[in-house]
Order: sequence, then C-alpha cells, then structure tokens
Amino acid sequence: VLAGLEVAAALLAEEVAHERSLAVAFFTNEEGVRFAPDMMGSLVYAGGLPLTTALDCIGTDGARLGDELARIGYAGTAPLGIHRPCAFLELHIEQGPVLEAEGKTIGVVDSVQGISWTAYDIKGVSNHAGTTPMHLRRDAGYVAAELICFVRALARRCGGSQVSTVGRVVLEPNLVNVIARRAHLTVDLRNTEANVLRRAEKEVASFVIELAERERVDIASTPLVRLDPVCFDRDLVARVEATAGALGYSSRRMPSGAGHDAQMMARICPTAMIFVPSVAGISHNVREFSRPEHIEAGLQVLADLTLELLNK
Amino acid sequence: VLAGLEVAAALLAEEVAHERSLAVAFFTNEEGVRFAPDMMGSLVYAGGLPLTTALDCIGTDGARLGDELARIGYAGTAPLGIHRPCAFLELHIEQGPVLEAEGKTIGVVDSVQGISWTAYDIKGVSNHAGTTPMHLRRDAGYVAAELICFVRALARRCGGSQVSTVGRVVLEPNLVNVIARRAHLTVDLRNTEANVLRRAEKEVASFVIELAERERVDIASTPLVRLDPVCFDRDLVARVEATAGALGYSSRRMPSGAGHDAQMMARICPTAMIFVPSVAGISHNVREFSRPEHIEAGLQVLADLTLELLNK
Repeated sequence: VLAGLEVAAALLAEEVAHERSLAVAFFTNEEGVRFAPDMMGSLVYAGGLPLTTALDCIGTDGARLGDELARIGYAGTAPLGIHRPCAFLELHIEQGPVLEAEGKTIGVVDSVQGISWTAYDIKGVSNHAGTTPMHLRRDAGYVAAELICFVRALARRCGGSQVSTVGRVVLEPNLVNVIARRAHLTVDLRNTEANVLRRAEKEVASFVIELAERERVDIASTPLVRLDPVCFDRDLVARVEATAGALGYSSRRMPSGAGHDAQMMARICPTAMIFVPSVAGISHNVREFSRPEHIEAGLQVLADLTLELLNK
Repeated sequence: VLAGLEVAAALLAEEVAHERSLAVAFFTNEEGVRFAPDMMGSLVYAGGLPLTTALDCIGTDGARLGDELARIGYAGTAPLGIHRPCAFLELHIEQGPVLEAEGKTIGVVDSVQGISWTAYDIKGVSNHAGTTPMHLRRDAGYVAAELICFVRALARRCGGSQVSTVGRVVLEPNLVNVIARRAHLTVDLRNTEANVLRRAEKEVASFVIELAERERVDIASTPLVRLDPVCFDRDLVARVEATAGALGYSSRRMPSGAGHDAQMMARICPTAMIFVPSVAGISHNVREFSRPEHIEAGLQVLADLTLELLNK
C-alpha cells in the first residue's frame, strides 16, 4: 500500500515529472440501492443520463436525489464534462472467486458483462398429487425446474464468459401433496459478447415456447433489465497486463461480472480496470475481504501505469 | 340414485331375502385435518390404533378428540370389533381425472397407493450471479431443479401407477441476482406396488448422494410420511368388475391415489371399492362435482353386489 501512496504523494507534491494532469474521480451513487439506476454519477458524467433526470430521481424512501445531495453538502457546482480524460483506470476487488481459485494476483479486466433479466410466470393446473397420473399433469413446478436445468445447460454450451442463474422461484400453492398451479421465476443471463448474449436470450425464448406447448402450461415473460456488454480499450488493457507482468505479478484477463463506473467512462475515453482477489469470492457481505498484499499489488499496477500515461 | 335407494329401502324393510346382515359404516375422522392421522376411525376399528390413543389425540386447536366426540354427542358405547364383516365395499368419487379422460363410468379399485413423503434441505453457497463462473458454483436452487426433473423422469421410467410430485420448493435468499444458498423441497412418491415404491425411494436416495457430491452441496433428508400400499381382495375386485359389466357400465381397474377407510378395513376382511368419475378430476375444492348419472351407476353396482354378497 505504501508504494502506491508514495507515488500518489509524490505526484501531488509535483515531485514526479508529468505532461498530463491527473484527476481522482469519486462518482455519486455507484450502488444504486436507494436511487436507481446504479453507476448513476458516471453515467451522467459520460452523457448517458441528463443531470436533471438524475437529480429528480426519487429514492426507495421517497426522497429526491438532488435534495439529498444538497442536504449532505455533496451538490457540486462544476459544469459537467469539464474534463474529458485521455484515459480512465479503475482498481477494484474482483467480487468473485476466479483469481483466488487460479492463484493469480492481478485481474486484467477486458470487458463488463451484458446483463439480461427476465421474469417468467408459469400457469399450470393445481391437482391432487396422488390421484393425477403423470401424463395428465400440467405441473407449473416441474416446468420451472426444467427451465432452470435448461438455462444451466445453456451456459455450459455457450461457454466463455456466459453465466446463467435462476435465483428466485416461488410456487403456488407450495404444498407437499398438491401439483403446483403456478410458478414464478427469474432468469439472469450475462455475457461479455453481445451476439452470444442475444443468442442465449433467443434460445431461452424458443425453449420456453416449446416447453409451454409440450407441458400444456401458459408461460408469460416480462423483461426486467437489459444492458449491453462493454469492451474496454484494447491498448489500455494490454498495458495493464504488461505493467502487471513487469512488476512480476501473475495475472489473467477476465470480464467483470458486476457493473462499475469504468463501464460508463468507456463511452467517452479509453478505459480499463484492474482486479485484485476477493477471499473466497465473497462480496456484498460483511465477510468481504481482500488481502493487504493483493491490494498493494493492485495499487502498484495502478500507480505505475498512471505514471506512464501521464507522460505517454 | 333411486334404484340404489330403493334397494336399500327394500333391504331395510326386509323385503329382500338375505342370509347375512348388512351394516352401514360411518367412521370418525376420515380426513384427519384437525386430528391426525386421517382414516382414524377405520384404523381403530381394524385394530391398527388403540382406542385410547385415538381418543387422547390433540387437535390443531388444542382440543382432545374424546372430549370433542362427547361434546357433540358422537361418543359411541358399542365395544370395538363387535362386527367382523365378511366383506366391505366402499363407493367413492375418483377425485382424479382418469375415468373422465377415458370415458369410463365405473372405476374398479384394486389397490390403494403406498405413500412416501421426504423433505430435502439442500445447503449450497450463496454468491454473486454475475461474478461467479458456472464451474465454481454450489447452487442449491439448481440442485433442487435437477432433483425435481429426476423424480419426474423416475415416475415415467417406473411406469404403472407410479406418480411423483414436488409440490413445495423454497429458495434462500430467493433473489434474481444471487445464487441460492439453500433450497427446501419435498418429494411425494406413490405406487400400488410395494417393491416398486421401495425401488423408487432407493433410486431417489442414491441420486441425491450422487447429486450432492457432483454439485458440492450438502443434502439432508427427513422422512415425513410412509404408508405401504394396500391390495384389495382379488375375488371381490373381480366381482365389482363383473357387476359393472352385467349392468352395462364401462369400467376400468385402477388404484386409488388418495386414502380411504376401505384400506384400513382391508386389514380384517375382503374389501373393494367402486369409483365414479369426478368432473375435470377436481377434488377438495368447491368445484368438486360428479354427475348424478354416474353416482346412480355407482350406487347400482354397490347395491347389486351387496345383494349378491348377502346371499352368497
């Protein structure tokens, strides 16, 4: 950690020669829990959301974002877009288990996954679990299970960065001896490649039609979230990799499965990210932890590459 | 309906010659909703449950069965086992869709399915749906889905009367973008053949072990209900079938998927059941309905065979 801090201190003290200016960015509302969408500040900065729309956003508690920023003294006065960076770098913990599992120190993030969330509402027919023969059932719970297995197999078939998750399932009436009349579930698909993600979405949609017909149930779908994947700057990503290598750190290229401000800044300038390992891949949890030596390594890559970019 | 009633009236008026006596049975607490177990009265009558145990049974509202029977004037005084019938017949609605689907009037019930209920508690690891690669997941929700698909395929593979149902599934934390750390589900297996039911139970148990190992989750199982199948008296079943045929009614042999007092009486005397169609197979529902002409047909079979048995 010290090495990184020393470089930062030296820069601030103008003790290091640099041709370009350095700015440190703190964006409002990256998480988006109280005020949606997430990554709101960087999205506004990059021109993807009008400032007034963002300020008028109403939170889960009924408060207006602009009022709350003024109340806590965070309402800035500088005009938007005053700085258009020649490059943007973001250091982050991985929030996943890949680096730790592979024993790598640095994640060279080359992309951010696109996200597709869809809710499905399956309408079958509730009936007696003992007296209804298998071939006469219209079992919403079974249909949900088959859809879950399909999206899992789909992710394996697509390979690469494709992930798929069914995290939410609710059956009605949800009783041991009653065939479910209804099942609600969500499908979360993510991929760094826009065309593969679209193909995965289409495969799920086709399967749902086939499944509904075969099992004689109705399946209604509702799109919840749809974000295209983001690819980071090829040259800048290569320089992150080279810097990690020059410092002797093991690294691997990887996509980010979570959203970050860098994906919004990628709209206006060459952007890349540096990941460091998360212990056990745990995140958004009080047990979230990254080892000091890994944080130091990440800061060192950030500092060295920043110095290079300042004089490129 | 009249024909059946006329026969009954004629019997009661001693206008029909008969060598044996006729008794009409009304058993206490067939449903078992307030006081468990169900089919309690017939179970006590057949010697499967001590009378005092049954009378001391505490209901869902805290009341004691014996006290409640006394309170409503239903506490009888006749000693148990005073009548040991030479045969027992029960007429019932099917409570399922088979007779209607096949256009049959009379169900010749040759058996009652054995029931096996097991609860499964699957412990996986909760994680981020975006940042956790497929091969590093320990997804309790996916494991639940695979188990649901397995028991469905198992029922198809076993064939015959085998049915399997997963009517209850609960995921934790049950969120769109979080891999489930836990899944609770129940498996309901039923078959008229004891050895097939046992084999089905063993297949599920083996699969659960294999699945837990493959998906690196813990699966704990808890047995909930286990009742062996009951086979009705071969000769009496054949006589139900012959009587229906002699009356010109279409019929088919079938098991009962639900429990009935007849299955308890089968412990002490030759027993059989007659089913009539349930419209749309709906039961335990305000929409439960059987057509008068079907009820009449069922009563006619019951009456004719009863007359025969009285003089056999």
